[in-house]
Amino acid sequence: MKAEATEEQIGHVVQEIGRFGLRADVSKGEYKTVIGLVGDERKAPFDHFETLPGVKEVMRIETAYKLISREYTKYSEGLKHHSRIVKVGKLSIGDNGPVFMAGPCAVESKEQLFRIAEGVKKAGAHILRGGIYKPRSSVHSFQGLGAVDRKTAERALKWLSEAGREFGMPTVTEVRGEGHADLVAEYADILQIGSRNMYDQDLLTMVARKKKPILFKRHFGAGIEEFLSFAEYIAAEGNRDIILCERGIVPVGKGREYTRYTLDLAAVPAIQKETYLPIIVDPSHGTGRRDLIFNMSCAAIAAGANGLMIEAHYNPEEALVDGSQTITTDELGKIIRTCQEIAPLIVPSRMISDAKD
Amino acid sequence: MKAEATEEQIGHVVQEIGRFGLRADVSKGEYKTVIGLVGDERKAPFDHFETLPGVKEVMRIETAYKLISREYTKYSEGLKHHSRIVKVGKLSIGDNGPVFMAGPCAVESKEQLFRIAEGVKKAGAHILRGGIYKPRSSVHSFQGLGAVDRKTAERALKWLSEAGREFGMPTVTEVRGEGHADLVAEYADILQIGSRNMYDQDLLTMVARKKKPILFKRHFGAGIEEFLSFAEYIAAEGNRDIILCERGIVPVGKGREYTRYTLDLAAVPAIQKETYLPIIVDPSHGTGRRDLIFNMSCAAIAAGANGLMIEAHYNPEEALVDGSQTITTDELGKIIRTCQEIAPLIVPSRMISDAKD
Amino acid sequence: MKAEATEEQIGHVVQEIGRFGLRADVSKGEYKTVIGLVGDERKAPFDHFETLPGVKEVMRIETAYKLISREYTKYSEGLKHHSRIVKVGKLSIGDNGPVFMAGPCAVESKEQLFRIAEGVKKAGAHILRGGIYKPRSSVHSFQGLGAVDRKTAERALKWLSEAGREFGMPTVTEVRGEGHADLVAEYADILQIGSRNMYDQDLLTMVARKKKPILFKRHFGAGIEEFLSFAEYIAAEGNRDIILCERGIVPVGKGREYTRYTLDLAAVPAIQKETYLPIIVDPSHGTGRRDLIFNMSCAAIAAGANGLMIEAHYNPEEALVDGSQTITTDELGKIIRTCQEIAPLIVPSRMISDAKD
Amino acid sequence: MKAEATEEQIGHVVQEIGRFGLRADVSKGEYKTVIGLVGDERKAPFDHFETLPGVKEVMRIETAYKLISREYTKYSEGLKHHSRIVKVGKLSIGDNGPVFMAGPCAVESKEQLFRIAEGVKKAGAHILRGGIYKPRSSVHSFQGLGAVDRKTAERALKWLSEAGREFGMPTVTEVRGEGHADLVAEYADILQIGSRNMYDQDLLTMVARKKKPILFKRHFGAGIEEFLSFAEYIAAEGNRDIILCERGIVPVGKGREYTRYTLDLAAVPAIQKETYLPIIVDPSHGTGRRDLIFNMSCAAIAAGANGLMIEAHYNPEEALVDGSQTITTDELGKIIRTCQEIAPLIVPSRMISDAKD
Repeated sequence: MKAEATEEQIGHVVQEIGRFGLRADVSKGEYKTVIGLVGDERKAPFDHFETLPGVKEVMRIETAYKLISREYTKYSEGLKHHSRIVKVGKLSIGDNGPVFMAGPCAVESKEQLFRIAEGVKKAGAHILRGGIYKPRSSVHSFQGLGAVDRKTAERALKWLSEAGREFGMPTVTEVRGEGHADLVAEYADILQIGSRNMYDQDLLTMVARKKKPILFKRHFGAGIEEFLSFAEYIAAEGNRDIILCERGIVPVGKGREYTRYTLDLAAVPAIQKETYLPIIVDPSHGTGRRDLIFNMSCAAIAAGANGLMIEAHYNPEEALVDGSQTITTDELGKIIRTCQEIAPLIVPSRMISDAKD
Repeated sequence: MKAEATEEQIGHVVQEIGRFGLRADVSKGEYKTVIGLVGDERKAPFDHFETLPGVKEVMRIETAYKLISREYTKYSEGLKHHSRIVKVGKLSIGDNGPVFMAGPCAVESKEQLFRIAEGVKKAGAHILRGGIYKPRSSVHSFQGLGAVDRKTAERALKWLSEAGREFGMPTVTEVRGEGHADLVAEYADILQIGSRNMYDQDLLTMVARKKKPILFKRHFGAGIEEFLSFAEYIAAEGNRDIILCERGIVPVGKGREYTRYTLDLAAVPAIQKETYLPIIVDPSHGTGRRDLIFNMSCAAIAAGANGLMIEAHYNPEEALVDGSQTITTDELGKIIRTCQEIAPLIVPSRMISDAKD
Repeated sequence: MKAEATEEQIGHVVQEIGRFGLRADVSKGEYKTVIGLVGDERKAPFDHFETLPGVKEVMRIETAYKLISREYTKYSEGLKHHSRIVKVGKLSIGDNGPVFMAGPCAVESKEQLFRIAEGVKKAGAHILRGGIYKPRSSVHSFQGLGAVDRKTAERALKWLSEAGREFGMPTVTEVRGEGHADLVAEYADILQIGSRNMYDQDLLTMVARKKKPILFKRHFGAGIEEFLSFAEYIAAEGNRDIILCERGIVPVGKGREYTRYTLDLAAVPAIQKETYLPIIVDPSHGTGRRDLIFNMSCAAIAAGANGLMIEAHYNPEEALVDGSQTITTDELGKIIRTCQEIAPLIVPSRMISDAKD
Repeated sequence: MKAEATEEQIGHVVQEIGRFGLRADVSKGEYKTVIGLVGDERKAPFDHFETLPGVKEVMRIETAYKLISREYTKYSEGLKHHSRIVKVGKLSIGDNGPVFMAGPCAVESKEQLFRIAEGVKKAGAHILRGGIYKPRSSVHSFQGLGAVDRKTAERALKWLSEAGREFGMPTVTEVRGEGHADLVAEYADILQIGSRNMYDQDLLTMVARKKKPILFKRHFGAGIEEFLSFAEYIAAEGNRDIILCERGIVPVGKGREYTRYTLDLAAVPAIQKETYLPIIVDPSHGTGRRDLIFNMSCAAIAAGANGLMIEAHYNPEEALVDGSQTITTDELGKIIRTCQEIAPLIVPSRMISDAKD
């Protein structure tokens, strides 16, 4: 829109967009307003839109993830920062320093959770994670306290919220199905969409509407284009507080697996070139091996990640889920300290520009 | 259970199983009753169960998909057929001859649907398919009539149901999100879980409870073990009317893609060795190329598939979704006729037994 | 070249091509001569070539596999057949009926080889296979008689040749390294390049020069474009007697493997659209499971394959290599008979043309 | 062998091993001698070997890569270092600090090579790389000076050797086929086996016998087990001076590729747990994108890599091969400096031990 476009003119454009079965994404910047189209663009009469009063220019962005693309953001938010800053309470994600999310794979009891929360806080973590609705490959495995009944699920969510408050950390937990979205949104500070649900557009849409920051994990079989295209489903609901998460893709080749998944660390800077959303890495699921977490945490930060999500426990052997990839809270402390030394060395990360830039 | 076990004894075992946080899957055969455990088996006191009155024997099946395994079925249903027969109205799927499901990728209008339904019926199809809730990689593409609003969705579902009745074919359409399950189940005869939702255990559980046959598609990045383990989520709700569907996996290697996905036809006989569920093949999505549908349909039937799902249209060029992989209803007729000639040649398919059998 | 171009003009064009560091591929058809460029085309002054006497037209084919492409073949050979016919003695491969190659995975002794040769001949096989230089993933496994010493290798090659003559079958065996090419070419009728060596351009070039038909297997991690681009290395030496072979690609997804590889049967018709070379399928390596060979053999023929390569033995349990994927010669007979019933049903395989055709 | 075993006893054991068609790998340590078996172990009479004079103990190592495994090394070399140290002139690879190999993708002229050599030396590189025999996917692309003729190849190899001497850097270049092994070994200090030839056991065996250090690159479709099992072919010739190289594996998923390959950095520490061989990373081929080299170089070092191989040029735009992934020598300097700051932070990389250790 032109800098001098009136509210009425903006409203008219939005209305016109609606008339063609599309939705409007209105971003008001300091100097100008940008309106993005959401929906089936084949119906869009771009020529017509160009003639509406107040419209300065009509541009087409040729990706499926245009609302979160650097190109669109440049117009709509005049972005000067390296990445969008997602605010969670007083915490900023995507800013200068890396953010560390840690906690148990699954919440098992109040005592377990509080003891771990205390440990990860002491180790330097900023955000407390804890799984309540656990996605599992087998219906015959432990499915998290969320699977017992709604009352138990709510109790576990309350513990998580209390532990977060007690130790001064916002919390993150997974929303696995549409039926849990309301309940989880009531208690958690960040809503996680897990790897297995990346393609679940109805769940994405519903969770996006909760107006809370979303931790969005890449599916282990998804290419980067798919990953970003599904993040766009969240953005299309007007929610840009999206934290992307690389958590490993399926290994190639024959023979025994040395890592549970293959961490695709080059996806971190590659995605940062495409979108302004912060991206973190989960070396716990990404490797499935406790003894590789230190190296891969350091590597993720060196690759430019905006943070890490790590499963930690006071006694990993005891964990009901994923013990073999869980580290102690002491080890977590060493990792966080090393990562904080590495992070400042990566500042000039954009020194090599692509020829096209 | 022993052959002479009483109802009371069966009830007691079920109750005991429940006491340990597990659910019981009770299969009553002609001569005996078999009770399967559903849930986290670490809690299960197998020794204790063995001592309960009426219990003949306690066995462990070491897969994540035991309820649908041939081994369990052997005990619970005394299965002599090559595969389970899923009844849809008067139609039997998994019986001797292959079953053909065909129709448009997406339902666009009543006229389009009826005209295609007439065509596919004439071509020899048994079941009418038509997408109303379309899963799409981009929020900016056409999402099916289901995306317009609930009223439009219901109208489209009614058309599908009417077209099915008019031309004597049961219908199948996709349930993409938990929020649509009730509505779709009201109208469709078979409920489809699409490839992208294969891992969505909450959706699976909810749809399973509708007590209608389910067409369950393999995710394009999923191994066979994962595919069957998630089918088990459906079976765990007591719904065994599951039709599996191979629809292609992501291609390997570098360079341009000659097929949209790689049809894994060896999965058909491999899965038939593991489970008694019928399995069909979708060569339309599996190849993404109209000009390969004939060959791959024939190949799927030769591999032993219990049927095919094919996208057909009176004029594929017109289709809003997936036109490049849609064939004409005339071509469908030729495919069905050729497949019906091939199918009887494959009867002795079990002639080569594995050494272990 | 123009129809009336003289030998001298053709020679001049070839010379000019050579002057720019390129090689000329001269195909003389009944009515005209076509000259293809081999080598680094950036150096090629296409404008200059167009002005040479006798040149009718200069065209660019935009693939890395132009010499074997249908487009080039159309000009150079006026191809009317569905595929090129590779002659091996009196046998035609790529003609109407499918060709069956069978024999032991590895030649172990004269007696073993002759007994199997007799069996596969009786079963209906046309070509005798037998591995002498075995590519193996572990240096600590049996590497075939070729690994013992040159004398033993030659003895085994003689047995193969004698068995072929005795039972009226041309023979095929693998050339695993450049050092064996001369010796193998002396005895075998078809020279096989194994899956692991697909990318080995020096080996391909050397074997192509032996002027014998080549069985060229796709690497298990290669896309179709790579496969054809490496087949072009053979064609670039003037050897077009190439039989392609699909033998399975690495499985996707997590969990245990149900098949050793994933047979990519859609590659068969997809490759037949790109090139005129015949293509066969190896269901033995492709599945790694004896109990799936029947189904996948039938499926391969139904997909349009020009033949099959199958490992057979009078007693598979005895085989030193790959026994678990080897069938009996009796089973081979049933497979060949069924495939011969299926093949004629697939004749109209080109009935569905792509919209672009 | 017992500490007091005589030369005669050792010789007798070697002879006995040979009698069963196996080869002996004799490692003499300070205190004791260890003899490894090479070849088809099914023939090995372990009980018999145990009774031979001077034999202390017979052990079986259950991997295909036992000669390079940490377990075998522990016995044969009493290894206390984190990794084997491969000596190239005065340079040590696998020692404390990371080693940097850099240079042009392909050697094009003496002037180009010397100018780049000077640049990379100034940037801090230790080893000069330059491709002469270039493996290429298309026979129609530039194949390196090695493809012109033997004389040109030798001239280019001399330039490389001279440039190395002039700027005080050992050199590395690829041996693509068996026919070039002698020539390359005459001039280069490290012999490279490229990704495409990883599975070529005959080439590996021949190159191993040149008794020079070997840079062994992982195939882009190979699992770690395959990679190490083929490195074993080199070790089986008595050559342990193997430098492994991770250079990216094929991407998963659909959609456009953001990186040419997926760098599998977790393979670095995972391989270091299995074997004592040093491992470096090639971020140039691994990403195919100049603008990601900085981040991925830092990430590789943070993951624990013993060095990097990077393509650099004074003017990447000019390069005949792979210009889009080539950086300037100035950029190389910044990368090396940053990596040298990161490396010391990773020292305590073994602080997280696996529960089994």
